[in-house]
Amino acid sequence: MLNKLSLNKFQKRFAHNLLTDVHYQMRYNNFVRLANNGLELNNFYRVTHQEARLNCRCPECWFTFNQPKKSESFEDVVIKEIISVDTEYVHLKWSDDHTGIFPRKDSSAFPGVKMNSNEMLELAMRKNSALNFWSKPDKNIYREFLFDDIKNNEIELQKCLIQLTKYGIATIKGVPQETDTVIKLPELLGLGPTWSSLFGSPFKVQNKKKESRNHAYTGKELPLHTDIPYYSQPPGVFLFHCISNKCEGGESFYVDSFACINEFRKQYPEEFKILTTVEVTFRDLQDDWHLVSTHPIIELNPNGIDIFRINDSPAARDFFDWIPTEFHTRENWYKSYNLYRKFIEDPSRRFEFKMKPGDLTIFDNWRVYHARNKFIGDERHMEGCYMEWSHVRSKLLKLTS
Amino acid sequence: MLNKLSLNKFQKRFAHNLLTDVHYQMRYNNFVRLANNGLELNNFYRVTHQEARLNCRCPECWFTFNQPKKSESFEDVVIKEIISVDTEYVHLKWSDDHTGIFPRKDSSAFPGVKMNSNEMLELAMRKNSALNFWSKPDKNIYREFLFDDIKNNEIELQKCLIQLTKYGIATIKGVPQETDTVIKLPELLGLGPTWSSLFGSPFKVQNKKKESRNHAYTGKELPLHTDIPYYSQPPGVFLFHCISNKCEGGESFYVDSFACINEFRKQYPEEFKILTTVEVTFRDLQDDWHLVSTHPIIELNPNGIDIFRINDSPAARDFFDWIPTEFHTRENWYKSYNLYRKFIEDPSRRFEFKMKPGDLTIFDNWRVYHARNKFIGDERHMEGCYMEWSHVRSKLLKLTS
Repeated sequence: MLNKLSLNKFQKRFAHNLLTDVHYQMRYNNFVRLANNGLELNNFYRVTHQEARLNCRCPECWFTFNQPKKSESFEDVVIKEIISVDTEYVHLKWSDDHTGIFPRKDSSAFPGVKMNSNEMLELAMRKNSALNFWSKPDKNIYREFLFDDIKNNEIELQKCLIQLTKYGIATIKGVPQETDTVIKLPELLGLGPTWSSLFGSPFKVQNKKKESRNHAYTGKELPLHTDIPYYSQPPGVFLFHCISNKCEGGESFYVDSFACINEFRKQYPEEFKILTTVEVTFRDLQDDWHLVSTHPIIELNPNGIDIFRINDSPAARDFFDWIPTEFHTRENWYKSYNLYRKFIEDPSRRFEFKMKPGDLTIFDNWRVYHARNKFIGDERHMEGCYMEWSHVRSKLLKLTS
Repeated sequence: MLNKLSLNKFQKRFAHNLLTDVHYQMRYNNFVRLANNGLELNNFYRVTHQEARLNCRCPECWFTFNQPKKSESFEDVVIKEIISVDTEYVHLKWSDDHTGIFPRKDSSAFPGVKMNSNEMLELAMRKNSALNFWSKPDKNIYREFLFDDIKNNEIELQKCLIQLTKYGIATIKGVPQETDTVIKLPELLGLGPTWSSLFGSPFKVQNKKKESRNHAYTGKELPLHTDIPYYSQPPGVFLFHCISNKCEGGESFYVDSFACINEFRKQYPEEFKILTTVEVTFRDLQDDWHLVSTHPIIELNPNGIDIFRINDSPAARDFFDWIPTEFHTRENWYKSYNLYRKFIEDPSRRFEFKMKPGDLTIFDNWRVYHARNKFIGDERHMEGCYMEWSHVRSKLLKLTS
């Protein structure tokens, strides 16, 4: 946002301009100047002519909120003159005779709506530096919220969504122990529709014993994994509701992959690079469907710095589309992956607990691995569903603006 | 798949091995040999010990279809001995005394299920080389399918999904002209649940005139765009149903971005690079939600070659999160983007037609731009919804296996 640059940068740029930039026409007017390649505002940022025009906030050019009314590109139009400057807008005259206004600050850039703080925007966007990574579980990770509280009190819901975004996991207690409750939760909390996979919504995690063709639906242990990476767009947020859990074992545990990866990339830069670039095939092939997709295990943002998502489910990894991959690539990939799994499987990283009936865990499926210990008994009944990260983000931003 | 390498490569590798590779223990047995770093099969591919063990298809290790039963990593286990080789499997003895089988071909790799041809897998995965790019509309692009046919005849549905995947667009005629029909279509055709955004499902595109805060819900022209890039995972497949279209103007037109981009990257490699790496903010800020996400305009697969998706909607692009971006980056981005838009907006690329009541257009929202001419009149009533590409892919693979 407009106030993002620090005072030091401001001063630096200001000094730089005064000393070296001879291109400015120096139509100095209340800290707004017309430069030959655009407009300079507040002495520390510049916008091109085109950018300024595309952001004209006059009623002829702009809908309320954030939509332009016009669809021209305005690439050849230039500012002819700064007519005047008030606290909110620079009033401009254009080469096509349009007279318009360009916003000088957030409040005038988004007329009619309150914008969030930069801190909240960065958190909601899951900018890595805004998140709290945890290499080991500590007291901040496990935070309980009461179902009645988050349902009735927006401040509590806001806290819960901040917890989910910052730490990747939050626990809701006192959820009705009825089937299908989990799929009603998103709409109930104003978090939009659930995201439905072919597994049904909710999917029911019970011990189906011999008839099962999927690890999850047995009593076996489940190693650390993220859900359904055989989707080209795996779901961002996982809701997991415990209806009954009368069994021996069956504890859930969670690991923050982003914390691990940040350590891993420092210690093993080559192996890290392999895991961010080599695409792996994930597949779920059943009577009724054939879901298949490829992802690198670690997916970075296009800036190459922030971690966007992990895609990792040993049981769903498919080897056979790999075979044409050059042998040494696969060999190196396995070496890197084995090292990485040792990192994440270190038991000291685990945040482990046994869910009780009425508990609902909500966690970041792009960041936090989940797993369970094996269990003995039939009375373990869990139901789950997924949500879009975009909907959680949207709600969090509306609650905090 | 196993037979992907050409005979030339086979011969080359074979000759190479015979001449230079002295590491093999030469336990030559029916074209299967034990090498010191793994297993060599059919003289042209090798798997590591670990890879071979993770793919043990014996009933103790493998569920039917494609899931391993065990969750160990097996990184330190090695093959002790090739016991025997039959047409389907290599029978192996392991250092931990396990006796297992490794598949020698597709049919034994996926026991109990028919696998698709490589051609179909590559098409379904939207591998660029398997798609038919169109720089100009020709007779192959517009293919009509009858609603009753695709509903009742799996061969017709298969053709329709192939058309959609290859060309990015298909038209269905004779769809009931009733509201909410479009959201019933995916389940009706076995394409899984619809993907629901906060705009509701279906969203209704009508001329709401003055009350609208969104271009789409007026009679104005809509420039070429993809839908809702302010989602972090924009929907892959767009279904658009015409219920009435009695107005002047209002023709739809479509452009294949992948064809444009392939030309663009050759002519303007620098500008192409900028559009694939600089992230742009997209935003939709309303009373009830604040959807915001960042994407580069052109998103490549991690291999850096294939185009994965375009994210481009001029009306939804937000400028204000940009301001902290360095001025020259923005300046160069605008130059590149202006050039790119000139490419895609060349009218000769347009595939244009006016939808009639009962028409339903289904298109690839990650590849094909859509737009409409302005219209005069109130009797234009369209309804739309979205689907997951993964669900279309799954159905196509099941229909063609």
